Amino acid sequence: MNGERRRVVVVGASAAGLRCACRLARLRPSWEVTVLERRDTFSWAACGLPYVLSGDIDEADALRRTQDGALRDEAYFAAVKGVTVLAGHEVFAVDTANRIARVRAGLQGIEVGWDELVLATGARARKLPGQGEHARVCSFHTPEDLARLHRGLTRREINRVVLVGGGLVGCELAEAFRSLWGCEVTLVEAAGHVLPGVLDVEMAAVAGRALEGHGVRIMAGLQVDAIETSDAGISARIGDDRVEADVAVVAVGVDPAVGLARRAGARLGASGAIVVDERLATTLPNVWAAGDCVEVRHAVTGAGAFLPLGSLANRQGRCLANVLAGRADRFPPVAGAVAVKLFDCNVAATGITRDHAERVGLAARSAWVVGHDSAHYWPEAKEIVLHLVYESGSGRLLGVQAVGDGEVAKRVDVVTQLIVRGGTLDDLAHVEHAYAPPYAPALDPLAVLAFVAQNQEDGIVGRPPSTGLADMRVLDVRHPEESEARPVGSADVVLAPLESLRAASQTGGDDPLLVVCERGTRSAEAVRWLRSRGIDASYLGGGLRLRSRPGSEDGE
Amino acid sequence: MNGERRRVVVVGASAAGLRCACRLARLRPSWEVTVLERRDTFSWAACGLPYVLSGDIDEADALRRTQDGALRDEAYFAAVKGVTVLAGHEVFAVDTANRIARVRAGLQGIEVGWDELVLATGARARKLPGQGEHARVCSFHTPEDLARLHRGLTRREINRVVLVGGGLVGCELAEAFRSLWGCEVTLVEAAGHVLPGVLDVEMAAVAGRALEGHGVRIMAGLQVDAIETSDAGISARIGDDRVEADVAVVAVGVDPAVGLARRAGARLGASGAIVVDERLATTLPNVWAAGDCVEVRHAVTGAGAFLPLGSLANRQGRCLANVLAGRADRFPPVAGAVAVKLFDCNVAATGITRDHAERVGLAARSAWVVGHDSAHYWPEAKEIVLHLVYESGSGRLLGVQAVGDGEVAKRVDVVTQLIVRGGTLDDLAHVEHAYAPPYAPALDPLAVLAFVAQNQEDGIVGRPPSTGLADMRVLDVRHPEESEARPVGSADVVLAPLESLRAASQTGGDDPLLVVCERGTRSAEAVRWLRSRGIDASYLGGGLRLRSRPGSEDGE
Repeated sequence: MNGERRRVVVVGASAAGLRCACRLARLRPSWEVTVLERRDTFSWAACGLPYVLSGDIDEADALRRTQDGALRDEAYFAAVKGVTVLAGHEVFAVDTANRIARVRAGLQGIEVGWDELVLATGARARKLPGQGEHARVCSFHTPEDLARLHRGLTRREINRVVLVGGGLVGCELAEAFRSLWGCEVTLVEAAGHVLPGVLDVEMAAVAGRALEGHGVRIMAGLQVDAIETSDAGISARIGDDRVEADVAVVAVGVDPAVGLARRAGARLGASGAIVVDERLATTLPNVWAAGDCVEVRHAVTGAGAFLPLGSLANRQGRCLANVLAGRADRFPPVAGAVAVKLFDCNVAATGITRDHAERVGLAARSAWVVGHDSAHYWPEAKEIVLHLVYESGSGRLLGVQAVGDGEVAKRVDVVTQLIVRGGTLDDLAHVEHAYAPPYAPALDPLAVLAFVAQNQEDGIVGRPPSTGLADMRVLDVRHPEESEARPVGSADVVLAPLESLRAASQTGGDDPLLVVCERGTRSAEAVRWLRSRGIDASYLGGGLRLRSRPGSEDGE
Repeated sequence: MNGERRRVVVVGASAAGLRCACRLARLRPSWEVTVLERRDTFSWAACGLPYVLSGDIDEADALRRTQDGALRDEAYFAAVKGVTVLAGHEVFAVDTANRIARVRAGLQGIEVGWDELVLATGARARKLPGQGEHARVCSFHTPEDLARLHRGLTRREINRVVLVGGGLVGCELAEAFRSLWGCEVTLVEAAGHVLPGVLDVEMAAVAGRALEGHGVRIMAGLQVDAIETSDAGISARIGDDRVEADVAVVAVGVDPAVGLARRAGARLGASGAIVVDERLATTLPNVWAAGDCVEVRHAVTGAGAFLPLGSLANRQGRCLANVLAGRADRFPPVAGAVAVKLFDCNVAATGITRDHAERVGLAARSAWVVGHDSAHYWPEAKEIVLHLVYESGSGRLLGVQAVGDGEVAKRVDVVTQLIVRGGTLDDLAHVEHAYAPPYAPALDPLAVLAFVAQNQEDGIVGRPPSTGLADMRVLDVRHPEESEARPVGSADVVLAPLESLRAASQTGGDDPLLVVCERGTRSAEAVRWLRSRGIDASYLGGGLRLRSRPGSEDGE
């Protein structure tokens, strides 16, 4: 492909498409690179839309500007990037035999020939079954969606909102509607908890408390059965309940936009997205695909996965340009790292959940750590809660979830590097980190997470934080003042601070003991000691703190 | 070693020694684990000392407390950990034939027998040649050093300070003396710039500006030839200069405390520290070592390295306990990640500097990125400067240095995972990260760093930010208002904003062009385009911003 003049047509001026087009124009300046985009405006950073709604970002145009302030419009791409972007040009059919794209441009139909075709058609907001068109029931996927809602908010026509879907976008919108505008927000999630697919139930409880702490009403495990609309508002039927609001925003995920690919005969995966190989080639000759419309290879499951993430789309666009230019670049398997801000609480996760692992038949096990993001004596240290999912026996890392007021996103990035390389507990236990008290404890909570799991493999079992304590024989190894401040809430509790445990006589009874403390550290130590004395004991993973919202209000 | 009762003696109640002793007591509760410590107080988090001086931490005792508030004294270790710590017990000789430690305890001499001996003797503050004992010339290594200086500050007897040494501790102390106490601080560094061994010269310039911006006077490339003391103060002779102050604090590094090991016949490495294998075994039978007194294996150079870091000491202590308990744990090679806070500027680095790489004969090359720690449109986005050192040709990652107001420590941790696994530019280019606008751009600056280096391997050469521009033929591809706000400072400058470059006629002249912009992004694009037209051009790495202190005062 080198040297000669080639015509590359990219369908879709999104992150993947534009990134690919611009790099290709740089690598092969003699080639003709054209991007066809069905919409009139394009190249907005879609992930920033919730933050325009929330008022964090002043104006939507900021999402279309480079860091140097240039607006990314057709003139910009032509002059700066040497790329022709044709907006308002919808490709409705692809003729792979003759290498022609059939395009609707306004009232006209035109044909565009190509040597290589790149499908970067992105994804579209999923709708509820039977969801009609109505001004009060909308998605949140485009600048138009944003503009409509923003207008309603500034005019004070929107004061009550039902959010259908408690995934990443639903949670971001909960903050956006609540923090600046003070709306009454009801978040409805069909799964048993918010952020399913990102967090397991115990971590979702922590995230859910962050939302509820800011006045968001969560209705989990419930379907929105119907939304009735009128000029005055909407009424959502949710199980036996009914919630009245001014608008309903449907954020139940996105589907890959694959109509064009399917009609052209490209193979689609089980997820519905376009199958590509590691060069991002589709199953059709000279047809490639990148971004939210493709399936990636998941590093943990080895299976195809639909992960519509801007970070992956950008990397795929660049990778595909390299491939088209004849380079050896390959798009590697991914761990599926994500992050989301819930008010002042940070959430990040990578790999798969325990729930997912069990679904695909892996012997998954959990470990929890309630730690600090910097040295615990550092005055600005913030609490973070970590959840590790690993494969019992092999110790393979399957996923990590992190929630808290402190730094979690980059810790998740660190683990991601291990996960994509098949890392194990031993690797995580020896994770090297740049240490100074303002940035991390001397042993990072990530390493401690591995220690907890290794100890668990030794038989020091941490029970899920959700374990009911009412009927258990509980040994509380905290100091009396801690026990008073945060009572165990169980009838059968023996108090024995860790420092007195060794000296204490045997605890009576034959039932297994559940040992508890604040963070699961001292109780795990106690369990090891008790077991060495032949006493059957386990401890409460993450301690009693994991059952309450992490943060300074607990007097940390 | 399993099962039977063994006597383990640990010399030194530091991070490594105590971590080892406590875990061993947990893993082998029937063993007798004794820690002998020459000092009377112990188990303080030494890395926190500067932050007690600075007032960030209220009282030194905080450094001796667990996160649950317990003071780590002898009673604590006995009751909670089942470990006997004997403070004020100095081991002065080791008889490896008879497995006896000879100990001075007050006026008494005693002998302690052992089956396994662990040397965790730590490191001691290095002194200047001929440095005597004087109240006004001290190190900063122990709580006593801290207490003396803190007393002088609270009594307002210390108002002017000479810091000898601009390494990690010297820089932390500069902040400590300056921020709360407002002292006049002169930092003297014999190398050409601050933080030698951590940062290369261009990055040290950025860090140095952070210190100078807060009023610290830096004298780099200069030796303190003599310090004269009197009752009234000190006078430091520095080259032809003389600086008067109330105290001089010597922070020229630490030496491993290896007297005991050397006298016992243990092999020492070229660095002077104790040689251990990956099990942390010394060359003496049944004698082990961990912490600041040992040499580690460097992941980049493959050689032994003396890296006295609390993070490594803690991990080694745990690892050694595992080994002694008969487990398969091994201490892996390290990249030497470090971090340090300079007022509101964060500094972190991993791997080796370009300077170090060149010294050991590697074909090192630099790449720079001036980026943001979150999406550039996120209102709280902060600027960070990254410097990558890689091996030309192979693309192997040798080191990363990061400085800025934004998040850098955990980004360095991400790269560390690649470096210890022999990662290359391709790995860094495909580094997966958890993306949401508050936490990172869609393409993390780390990936962009790899892109810049890959482009450089293509011939798009970024010249060092320190390149003199006065005599160069410069092409400025910024907008006119940018050029006005931050002029190039060269006589021969052609202004041609990137968007007009393609349309412009050939730039005259045959001399090589140096293209400049704000961050090195647009100028690199211009270079690629110019080269495709046969024009010899390179660009200024990191752009003109890298020459000024990153931060919001530049109107970002």
